[in-house]
Amino acid sequence: MSRAAVYGTGSWGTAFAAVLADAGTEVTMWGRRAEVVEQVNAGVNEAYLPELHLPDRVRATTDPAEACDGADVVVLAVPSQTLRDNLAAWGGVLPREAAVVSLMKGVELGTTKRMSEVVTEVGGVEEERVVVVSGPNLAREIAAKQPAASVVACRDHAMAERVAAACAAPYFRPYTGTDVVGTEIAGAVKNVIALAVGMAEGLGMGDNSKASIITRGLAETMRLGTALGGEAVTFAGLAGVGDLIATCMSPLSRNHSFGVRLGQGMTVDEVVAVTRQTAEGVKSCTSILELARKHDVEVPIIEQVDALIEHGRTIPEVVSTLLARPRKAETG
Amino acid sequence: MSRAAVYGTGSWGTAFAAVLADAGTEVTMWGRRAEVVEQVNAGVNEAYLPELHLPDRVRATTDPAEACDGADVVVLAVPSQTLRDNLAAWGGVLPREAAVVSLMKGVELGTTKRMSEVVTEVGGVEEERVVVVSGPNLAREIAAKQPAASVVACRDHAMAERVAAACAAPYFRPYTGTDVVGTEIAGAVKNVIALAVGMAEGLGMGDNSKASIITRGLAETMRLGTALGGEAVTFAGLAGVGDLIATCMSPLSRNHSFGVRLGQGMTVDEVVAVTRQTAEGVKSCTSILELARKHDVEVPIIEQVDALIEHGRTIPEVVSTLLARPRKAETG
Repeated sequence: MSRAAVYGTGSWGTAFAAVLADAGTEVTMWGRRAEVVEQVNAGVNEAYLPELHLPDRVRATTDPAEACDGADVVVLAVPSQTLRDNLAAWGGVLPREAAVVSLMKGVELGTTKRMSEVVTEVGGVEEERVVVVSGPNLAREIAAKQPAASVVACRDHAMAERVAAACAAPYFRPYTGTDVVGTEIAGAVKNVIALAVGMAEGLGMGDNSKASIITRGLAETMRLGTALGGEAVTFAGLAGVGDLIATCMSPLSRNHSFGVRLGQGMTVDEVVAVTRQTAEGVKSCTSILELARKHDVEVPIIEQVDALIEHGRTIPEVVSTLLARPRKAETG
Repeated sequence: MSRAAVYGTGSWGTAFAAVLADAGTEVTMWGRRAEVVEQVNAGVNEAYLPELHLPDRVRATTDPAEACDGADVVVLAVPSQTLRDNLAAWGGVLPREAAVVSLMKGVELGTTKRMSEVVTEVGGVEEERVVVVSGPNLAREIAAKQPAASVVACRDHAMAERVAAACAAPYFRPYTGTDVVGTEIAGAVKNVIALAVGMAEGLGMGDNSKASIITRGLAETMRLGTALGGEAVTFAGLAGVGDLIATCMSPLSRNHSFGVRLGQGMTVDEVVAVTRQTAEGVKSCTSILELARKHDVEVPIIEQVDALIEHGRTIPEVVSTLLARPRKAETG
């Protein structure tokens, strides 16, 4: 039987801890805040996923070393932009043989590094042990044990299989793969596309328009991902189009809802004030755009979202630009 | 300036007639029933698209020859399974130089032919003049002049450009292409996938499950389409994933809504009785499955939908089969 550590007590980390437990894996979560750790030990993470009753197999601690004691699977689920500091603080305790799983979907500001690259660089984890899990996985549906599937990718296929075995619950179906780069880029970019789709929705556009933005968003995600070494087929799969659709259409997606509010005319600051959190796409958008420019990849949707968030372009300007690019042949 | 004939007065034919008119094209619609033709001439097709006020440039007649007099673009928008009989009745009047556009999304029962093949065979139209228009184009949104994009495909690119010019309205953006087979297969199969997604929704499944079914539905559409000679890239575009998303997510899609009612426990006959029409996916599902079997292509979702509609399998059986196929590697 596997033993897993989950670092981070946000909604996805918590839901995934329950998935691991329901797959028969013993889980210890690490949280920074004592009151959250206490709640997890009492069976409910009130702050982030109050509707989920955690299985007994999930425990929590504030001690990073205790969390991963004896673990063969270590799951990282802290906010993307804090990963570097977190690993600098406690990365040294991670077991040297464990699979290290990233649930994080972002690109680091400043360095434009993917999360797996930060894990390798700061955590001292060899690439062969870094695993990425990504797919159409809205945390609250998984917490409700709705059937879902996900991609578990690692350069070393045996390591991906170890993680897949540890999280194969009756309602959660892991598919293994080896395309770490494609899986990560798909997961990060989809948050930005979801913002754009939400904006269109907030402006009152219908499903034809939203489906068109998703389609062209998928195309630019694929251009960027393959330029970075990802495989095209990944973007047609669960971690690509699957996650993109779930995120872009669901009212449960924070990025989508954030975009809807922007579309309705609120500023970024106003939305943050109301929702009391910043959506991942807002945080990663600039670093993803920087990554695309470094590799000379055209990403018009990401560009427009960044223009709105960072450079004061208005919603009507952004959406009309998105829907009005001149092109004759679809695949020209 | 173009002159177009539109055969058929259903909702999509009527909305597309308005698109052509708003693009500056003179349009004559042909309808079988005198009362519908009168309504169109009075400016509103009450039976099929009552919310759209038709432009003055759209007129209608019950005379097939009058409809296409002087037309350089002929649009066919009759029910898929009636195309053969319709063309046999009046196909002889179609102008010999006109582009002949199919808006129909089905596969013929018995012959397993695509609509463009029936046009060529029965209408005596050379392949170089057969054009297919398909994309995320929910008729009621287009009638409301919501922005939409579509693929206009023809083996002869100049003919596709003629049609694109005739329908390029301010809110409707045609992209030309040459992959007729891929565009048609994508349009036909998506109706069956939308039934499956609707069933899952009717059973209470969430967006993770629906996104997974759409993703795997896209994969089987692509397998079938490329086996028939379509290009993989078509399925990643507007006529592929774009149309699939719009159809699978929108409450305006008849196939999706039909599936939802099946998922809620109604029989096919009961749904037909309530909605007073059969969804295209219900009609084409068996012929698409037959086509797949002829070409030895695995299409598990289509198979399950067919098993439910034609062979009495129950909804829980179908959906659990869809969500439970054993697989280890995603792209194996």
